[in-house]
Amino acid sequence: MNVNGQHYRTIWLKESDPRCVQIIDQRFLPHEFVIEELRTVAQAATAIQEMHVRGAGLIGATAAYGMYLATMEGSGNFVSKAALDLKATRPTAVNLAWAVDRQVQAIARGTSGAEKTAIALATAKEIADEDAEYCRRIGEHGVRLIESLSRKKNGAPVNVLTHCNAGWLAFVDYGSATAPVYAAHDGGIAVHVWVDETRPRSQGAKLTAWELGQHGVPHTVIADNTGGHLMQHGMVDLVIVGTDRTTCTGDVANKIGTYLKALAARDNNVPFYVALPSSSFDWVMRDGLAEIPIEERGSQEVKYADGWHEGQRAEVLVAPAGSAAANYGFDVTPRRLVTGLITERGICRANEESILALFPERMKEEG
Amino acid sequence: MNVNGQHYRTIWLKESDPRCVQIIDQRFLPHEFVIEELRTVAQAATAIQEMHVRGAGLIGATAAYGMYLATMEGSGNFVSKAALDLKATRPTAVNLAWAVDRQVQAIARGTSGAEKTAIALATAKEIADEDAEYCRRIGEHGVRLIESLSRKKNGAPVNVLTHCNAGWLAFVDYGSATAPVYAAHDGGIAVHVWVDETRPRSQGAKLTAWELGQHGVPHTVIADNTGGHLMQHGMVDLVIVGTDRTTCTGDVANKIGTYLKALAARDNNVPFYVALPSSSFDWVMRDGLAEIPIEERGSQEVKYADGWHEGQRAEVLVAPAGSAAANYGFDVTPRRLVTGLITERGICRANEESILALFPERMKEEG
Repeated sequence: MNVNGQHYRTIWLKESDPRCVQIIDQRFLPHEFVIEELRTVAQAATAIQEMHVRGAGLIGATAAYGMYLATMEGSGNFVSKAALDLKATRPTAVNLAWAVDRQVQAIARGTSGAEKTAIALATAKEIADEDAEYCRRIGEHGVRLIESLSRKKNGAPVNVLTHCNAGWLAFVDYGSATAPVYAAHDGGIAVHVWVDETRPRSQGAKLTAWELGQHGVPHTVIADNTGGHLMQHGMVDLVIVGTDRTTCTGDVANKIGTYLKALAARDNNVPFYVALPSSSFDWVMRDGLAEIPIEERGSQEVKYADGWHEGQRAEVLVAPAGSAAANYGFDVTPRRLVTGLITERGICRANEESILALFPERMKEEG
Repeated sequence: MNVNGQHYRTIWLKESDPRCVQIIDQRFLPHEFVIEELRTVAQAATAIQEMHVRGAGLIGATAAYGMYLATMEGSGNFVSKAALDLKATRPTAVNLAWAVDRQVQAIARGTSGAEKTAIALATAKEIADEDAEYCRRIGEHGVRLIESLSRKKNGAPVNVLTHCNAGWLAFVDYGSATAPVYAAHDGGIAVHVWVDETRPRSQGAKLTAWELGQHGVPHTVIADNTGGHLMQHGMVDLVIVGTDRTTCTGDVANKIGTYLKALAARDNNVPFYVALPSSSFDWVMRDGLAEIPIEERGSQEVKYADGWHEGQRAEVLVAPAGSAAANYGFDVTPRRLVTGLITERGICRANEESILALFPERMKEEG
């Protein structure tokens, strides 16, 4: 999507040096646009773990490029260990393991170091291109929901609420939750986005607001507490969020607080959709609440808020220094609260039968 | 309650100068304990409007003392205008109008300026003492809920979740939502409080965490997004919140985000209680969602976060400077989601019949 009028993806190979991977270091957004160079798998792992990059799709793509870097640094055990290290960087997003496993299988087909590197690069590009293409298709399918609401409202702006950042910054391009919004906006449908700020890391205020603004989409930042009130007063037509992992039965892990918005949507008859490429499905787990691991991060993220102060990044201490704080990164929205899933193959209901109807190759044969 | 081991109320007459009212300027908490002197009704109005003081009970008490100050500054029209100005400072809390009206009626009984001032002072003290006493009784009634849960848990800590600050800082002493917690803690019952940080003004992280810490109550600050996840995993035994206005039919206006926690409590069978002195009832309104005015504040509170940085108060810009933000101060939790109301006269259900059974003098005679 656009940054200052120029098209960017979130990750790419450096034009002048194909041994170098470039990413947008998202920790500095929205206040500075910083491009970081990754030359080792350790740098790629750090970029994921310390959230220079984040978001289900982009974590997968970065891990895939990390494996490519690993093949240039060593072979055999080094590459195997790199795969384990990358998978251990963050626990919740299923795309991470999915991308690394795909690379491990691909690299195994190479018979020399050079061939393994060539395969790893091709696979990383494939994963990134596929991610962008799947998000584009999610936009094509999801925009129909917005079109239909727009007709019902006689062209008045359709108000979409989203939580966290499932925008193009969370993927390689387009985003998942934002893809239908961009498609609507680009197609001339009036659309306005309520952006949950998404404490404690404020990915909504920092990233979603920034990317919508760069693309010219009308939006309003709100505290995470606000969505219920807006829905009670008919000010939200549609909720679209992303997911870090959705079980094959339709339970949705996403940024902490998503469940609360799903409850409010249900209580006010607002449709609640989850947008995801198929790489975010977990085809093994069946009970999201019981099985999906929820990342716990440091208490400092809750006790402090960070932003821009006198021209530089600064953190302010909000809570008493002596108070404890807890920081759960995700929650699970049970399938019963999800109106539908928007995938690259179309929209389905959040249940196993409907998901498998779109992805029949995942159907397990009964013994 | 205690500050550095010394007992304080939130508002009092200066010992050496009874023409001066002193308050804790809560804008500096938890990082600095600042006492402000109010000598004019204009200063009292500013203290309410700019939230040096906040919280249903304390707003009422401050307005009452403001009326006392007004009687020393002028008479007749000046005092009448002061009453209107005070009532216009904040729209949602019903205690404000209640306290000012009570003062207007009381002052009218005085036959000289000096007598009016004496009456206004006596009435202000009465309102403040009554507020403290009612909160103490709320603690006596509410602690029984915690005792009962403690027995069920064989003495393991009872986990109470609260939103915003309905602590002693929001009243004159004890608080409403916190009164049962303090009573439990002081009575030797193990209790732990999940403190919603309560964006955008962070009254939970700043005030509730501070006052619980000063009193030695175990607590953990969480992002507002977190409560649903905790309830899904059995980590919350009881929710107690305050209210800025509760209709005589049981609908509860409280800090924005309360409704989302009530939905999560209902979805997980966690009891959801609202603690309030009777001064927070609106005996006229019958439909909270349709009738209670919801204050909208400036967008800066959402786009910025403020706290402590390098030894002084600082604001950091979180969202893009060019993005819009909306800032609704309160939401309304429908009575159907409220397990019960904890008042100074006991606990009742959130419906008109049950409320009027506790406050029979409010029963309207059928004509």
